Amino acid sequence: MSNEVTAERHRIAEVRITPIAFRDLPLLNTVGVHEPLALRAVVEVVTDSGLVGLGESYGDAGHLDRLRVAAQAITGIDVWHTHALAAAVHGALAADRGTGGHGMSGMVTGSSTVDRVMSPFEVACLDIRGKSIGRPVADLLGGALRDRVDYSAYLFYKWAGHPGAADDAWGAALDPAQIVAQAQRMIDAYGFTAIKLKGGVFRPEAEVEAVLALRDAFPDHPLRIDPNGAWTAATAIRVGAGLDGVIEYLEDPTTGIDAMAQVAREVSMPLATNMCVVAFDQVKPAVAQDAVQVVLSDHHFWGGLERSRSLAAICDTFGLGLSMHSNSHLGISLAAMTHLAAATPNLTYACDTHWPWKDPADDVIVPGALAFSGGSVAVPTAPGLGVELDRDALARLHEQYLSGGIRERDDTGYMRRFEPGFDPSAPRW
Amino acid sequence: MSNEVTAERHRIAEVRITPIAFRDLPLLNTVGVHEPLALRAVVEVVTDSGLVGLGESYGDAGHLDRLRVAAQAITGIDVWHTHALAAAVHGALAADRGTGGHGMSGMVTGSSTVDRVMSPFEVACLDIRGKSIGRPVADLLGGALRDRVDYSAYLFYKWAGHPGAADDAWGAALDPAQIVAQAQRMIDAYGFTAIKLKGGVFRPEAEVEAVLALRDAFPDHPLRIDPNGAWTAATAIRVGAGLDGVIEYLEDPTTGIDAMAQVAREVSMPLATNMCVVAFDQVKPAVAQDAVQVVLSDHHFWGGLERSRSLAAICDTFGLGLSMHSNSHLGISLAAMTHLAAATPNLTYACDTHWPWKDPADDVIVPGALAFSGGSVAVPTAPGLGVELDRDALARLHEQYLSGGIRERDDTGYMRRFEPGFDPSAPRW
Ligand SMILES: [Mg+2]
Ligand SMILES: [Mg+2]
Repeated sequence: MSNEVTAERHRIAEVRITPIAFRDLPLLNTVGVHEPLALRAVVEVVTDSGLVGLGESYGDAGHLDRLRVAAQAITGIDVWHTHALAAAVHGALAADRGTGGHGMSGMVTGSSTVDRVMSPFEVACLDIRGKSIGRPVADLLGGALRDRVDYSAYLFYKWAGHPGAADDAWGAALDPAQIVAQAQRMIDAYGFTAIKLKGGVFRPEAEVEAVLALRDAFPDHPLRIDPNGAWTAATAIRVGAGLDGVIEYLEDPTTGIDAMAQVAREVSMPLATNMCVVAFDQVKPAVAQDAVQVVLSDHHFWGGLERSRSLAAICDTFGLGLSMHSNSHLGISLAAMTHLAAATPNLTYACDTHWPWKDPADDVIVPGALAFSGGSVAVPTAPGLGVELDRDALARLHEQYLSGGIRERDDTGYMRRFEPGFDPSAPRW
Repeated sequence: MSNEVTAERHRIAEVRITPIAFRDLPLLNTVGVHEPLALRAVVEVVTDSGLVGLGESYGDAGHLDRLRVAAQAITGIDVWHTHALAAAVHGALAADRGTGGHGMSGMVTGSSTVDRVMSPFEVACLDIRGKSIGRPVADLLGGALRDRVDYSAYLFYKWAGHPGAADDAWGAALDPAQIVAQAQRMIDAYGFTAIKLKGGVFRPEAEVEAVLALRDAFPDHPLRIDPNGAWTAATAIRVGAGLDGVIEYLEDPTTGIDAMAQVAREVSMPLATNMCVVAFDQVKPAVAQDAVQVVLSDHHFWGGLERSRSLAAICDTFGLGLSMHSNSHLGISLAAMTHLAAATPNLTYACDTHWPWKDPADDVIVPGALAFSGGSVAVPTAPGLGVELDRDALARLHEQYLSGGIRERDDTGYMRRFEPGFDPSAPRW
């Protein structure tokens, strides 16, 4: 390139949205259990110049409807024009009165609909920008500050297998010893150097016991526990006292900014959240009460990578720590998460990822671009996100979506098939 | 461009810093009066690929020293790697113990030294990025939301001419009638649709009288007054009552977050600032007290255009209005300000500019790229900033710097040559 470069405009000419389903394991959380299939939407943005950018988002029916509405509105927009993209999505959804489609089975409902819908289009536009100028997406976010991004071992209580099916390869994890064994196996395979336990499943005392067992088994690994708001403030304070000096942060021990603020005043460790601060309009009230000390960003609901960069600047300015939340995801999202984390100076915690729980055969990208080693993923250096769509795989996972019959993530409904009286109402303890 | 593009790295190979001086008029403010020459530094960043990017900053001696130190540290950095640039500047200045060099004659002293020094390099890197991909800088900030950027008529009390010299073309403005005449003349020439009066020069009652005269003469122009913190909180509250319903915001009526908060609680209009919130570490305490309602951003001290974009996101998130501050500047800065404002959705006020006070013959860019019409400037659409360095003009203004003898802006010292007892200490009233 030289001074004489005349840029092609790279305007959005076509958007393809493909719902897909991938196999998931019976991971337990406070609202139920993961179904045998997890849903995602694969977004392809095609420019008039013939470039294709990739995005990945939730696959719930309500969300798919909104993605399709928004896709109609963004035709003609230049892939560099994030503000115009946001305005178009905002306009397209102005009449939206739908509910649901948050992609998180009721655990996170306060995120911004516009930001949630905009996210995969914005990521796809960044992919295109990178491809058009021969640079990785991290370069478009201020440049990678590290070659590799650390992720955490994300442990779940789980059943041995889906009811009626054979035991899966991970087997049951229903007590401290099994959780430690799960951690050992995951760390052996991936090299993770930090550990997170998804809680809110058993009595808090049992989960504290599991965390203490992890502490014994992995004395040098930072630990976290996340009950997804399953506890009262009083319970959270009690758990916090029991884990004093043991965990690096306590994630969403209770729900709501007021209760989190109450807990924050009484416990020694930082409180983290991906539930009570999940949109820009929740930051100010949370800061006013010092309700949380670490925000788990997630570009899927914070409006994409550039808005996540804004969130990082906000956290830096207000003295908030920054970590990264994960939902069950595929390789397009892992690439986007990795570029973002690499280019975020104040993202100082290992990011969450559900990656180990996914069947390696179930993905939509050509294998080889992303790999774990030492608990981290190398930041792709190829142009754009650095991952390529595998059309055969996409077709296969779309077929799995069509035949699987699941149209909305429903951890609670699936649990109730086996425990009809199951009540996910928070606080459970 | 196509998928096969392999990006050149565009690493910083050389940095040229040229101090220049341009003619200025005897504009009065609360710390004194503008000297006959205003200082700037023109920054040229040259890449190993042969591209040149432009930046403009303060020209005070202490600042020039720091720019030169930082310039040594940024060689080899890729122009897309803003985070690495910031880290290098931060590292280069770690041992800096200098004072002064703020470029604002003592009126703004709380800005971040690293951000102030980084700014022209970051702007130059954006200029290079734009040139390398054939896109205007606004495209690198999320895309222009408007074709033109509105500026305000920035009125000053002033002497008829510099002492000992002939009257200048604008003549004296020392009472309400002369201020109205100045406004009329400036609006006739530039078409401005908003008006700002620099105050803090005369008794507050006299300045209120001038604002009310402007209100009578220009009933549809939004008005502002900025005494640069010259008043006590009590005086500010009294002035605020007198201007209830007359001004769109009251800018820095008093100094410090505490006093501003006290005033904000008592007056009807928003308070704006480019004095008590001039760096990211001042945002949180200001928000905690609701001390200001509008932040006047200024990329020269907020660390460049991308960090100004972060500031805009912070303002949006915390419900703060956003306007733009100006210092005496040349065309490189006007281009940067215009790109930034065009790509900032929540910049809803007309920006400040000192442009009309500059001799049209004194600039360092090739004429024609920037022009006022209807009070606004068209956003350049050429690659990068869209302005080109005029090397003859640069040499001439550098010569003017060398022969002029001014090395540090000193409005107070210049005033004291004519009023030896002049005391700028705030609060003056
Ligand atoms: Mg969580
Ligand atoms: Mg001001």
